[in-house]
Amino acid sequence: MAKDRPPPNRDGEFQLIADVFAPLAEGNPGAFGLTDDAAISAPGEGFVHVFTMDTMVEGTHYLPDDPPADVARKLLRVNLSDLAAMAADPVSYLLSLSLGTTADREWIAAFAQGLAQDQQSYGVHLAGGDTTSGGDRTVLSLTAIGDAAPAAVLRRNGAADGHDIWVSGSIGDAGLGLMALRGECDALNAEDRGALADRYRLPRPRVSLGIALRGIAHAAADVSDGLIADLGHICRASDLGAEIDLETIPLSVAAARAIEAKLTTRLACATAGDDYELVFTAPSQAASAVEAAAIEAGTAVARIGRISATAEGVAVMDAGKPVDVGSDGGWRHF
Amino acid sequence: MAKDRPPPNRDGEFQLIADVFAPLAEGNPGAFGLTDDAAISAPGEGFVHVFTMDTMVEGTHYLPDDPPADVARKLLRVNLSDLAAMAADPVSYLLSLSLGTTADREWIAAFAQGLAQDQQSYGVHLAGGDTTSGGDRTVLSLTAIGDAAPAAVLRRNGAADGHDIWVSGSIGDAGLGLMALRGECDALNAEDRGALADRYRLPRPRVSLGIALRGIAHAAADVSDGLIADLGHICRASDLGAEIDLETIPLSVAAARAIEAKLTTRLACATAGDDYELVFTAPSQAASAVEAAAIEAGTAVARIGRISATAEGVAVMDAGKPVDVGSDGGWRHF
Repeated sequence: MAKDRPPPNRDGEFQLIADVFAPLAEGNPGAFGLTDDAAISAPGEGFVHVFTMDTMVEGTHYLPDDPPADVARKLLRVNLSDLAAMAADPVSYLLSLSLGTTADREWIAAFAQGLAQDQQSYGVHLAGGDTTSGGDRTVLSLTAIGDAAPAAVLRRNGAADGHDIWVSGSIGDAGLGLMALRGECDALNAEDRGALADRYRLPRPRVSLGIALRGIAHAAADVSDGLIADLGHICRASDLGAEIDLETIPLSVAAARAIEAKLTTRLACATAGDDYELVFTAPSQAASAVEAAAIEAGTAVARIGRISATAEGVAVMDAGKPVDVGSDGGWRHF
Repeated sequence: MAKDRPPPNRDGEFQLIADVFAPLAEGNPGAFGLTDDAAISAPGEGFVHVFTMDTMVEGTHYLPDDPPADVARKLLRVNLSDLAAMAADPVSYLLSLSLGTTADREWIAAFAQGLAQDQQSYGVHLAGGDTTSGGDRTVLSLTAIGDAAPAAVLRRNGAADGHDIWVSGSIGDAGLGLMALRGECDALNAEDRGALADRYRLPRPRVSLGIALRGIAHAAADVSDGLIADLGHICRASDLGAEIDLETIPLSVAAARAIEAKLTTRLACATAGDDYELVFTAPSQAASAVEAAAIEAGTAVARIGRISATAEGVAVMDAGKPVDVGSDGGWRHF
């Protein structure tokens, strides 16, 4: 981990950071104990490397008083979700920590603890990075590296007319979780609010599902902007449209109760972001293979519609009637 | 390039960014036009990938009124310098742009222009990244990816007793350049001040030299913290000491004149950072091979001392007498 020359009073802190992060590189021989200028890595036999880089800004993507371990895990997981959408197996990551004024030693130590915990869960190791300071807010960038089978990489442009559209897990929970954290879900019981907030704070990247779908799914994206927007990305990349049925979108028990309590709607769930589920397409004859892959990965999947050469953008139906999702046809949700 | 949900008033700006950066991924088929969740890359036959990640913070690593194209090129080049120190050939990079309050459209467009220029020079392409905002200062993170021959990767721990110590180019220019930009070198003529400032603003990563030294050099680091400090990193990693002679450290004409004008000393040049030269070791019988590699790479090299099992840390001699470089023996320069 390269160490920039910090302002003099942060010297000790930067040394602490080196001490805190070096153990996260153990088990990754190519990281050279974070003592070299760079790390090395080769994809496994027959694989290619897959790279993604996502950044989280204090106050924009997380709150200063969010538990630092959760911030770390979310940062890693949103990147792993991008790898999952490409059917890649996570290997390692590089981390840039640009410390703002509120990130003290305790925060940093707890942040590293969160990374250590998720490294175990996802089988990844730290490979390098950088520590800087100077801005008012902490800015966290992470580059995740995975392995993928080149012929089975899930692109957004692989959808074909008539493909089934599938989505994993449940949709809309993260958006409701943010509402709950803002005190906007008091009509729900504490357990539901907690479950939803947890879904916002700690995405479950569908890594195992992405890998299990190798050779079965033809196109995929992770649901970060919102289900309709991300399906829109697949449609746009594939130069096709889609028809989905709101009633088939999978909801958690808590989200279903939130709809019942009129805190949200099925359509709002389908346009809320941050769920980090996978939306993917597969030929209809592959339906049983998709279901078998989902069982293998321990992740529920639901069929929510089909790719269509005649639909414009993402056409949304509710109880057999078309729903207006905005002037841009669901391409974007803001 | 993933696009975070920006504050509403920055929507147009984020679209502009996508428009500005997409051309930088052309020529990199694994970047998928920046429209997918991640990029793919495989090292060339017989190579491994090499990764490094460096971050620059507005106001800490560059000034708000520095030319944005130069900021972009410096960001890329400091990362390429890390690759050079590992004898890696640059391939691609991922970029995180976390926009502060002063980065307007014009700044971003000029920043991308700088990247485009250096992509040509170094044969690299954009592979992905992220754009965010929220902090007061712009925070720029870059992950560079290169190819290296696994048996010839230059580590810091490869030095052996009796190895010659070499350094490329000239040392101390960047530190003097920063002084010149601060108006502290008025005793020099404008041409010298300009040459030094240019060395501070635009490092010349020794990529060709690193590659030419494959199989010849045994240990290397890039000179970012300062020559003595970075040589100290090699010594520490190799569990050996070093003896260097101040009089043999290569100086530019402008730096020599700055010493003559008492603006600096040879020792200060050897402890100033940001030169982004290579310091490396090789067996003495490889001296002619080192010189041939330097000619091949078009980069001057100078022999400045030797690795020693008996020296403690980096022992510095000046006109045959030991020089005190501080209580910590030159391990660190601040």
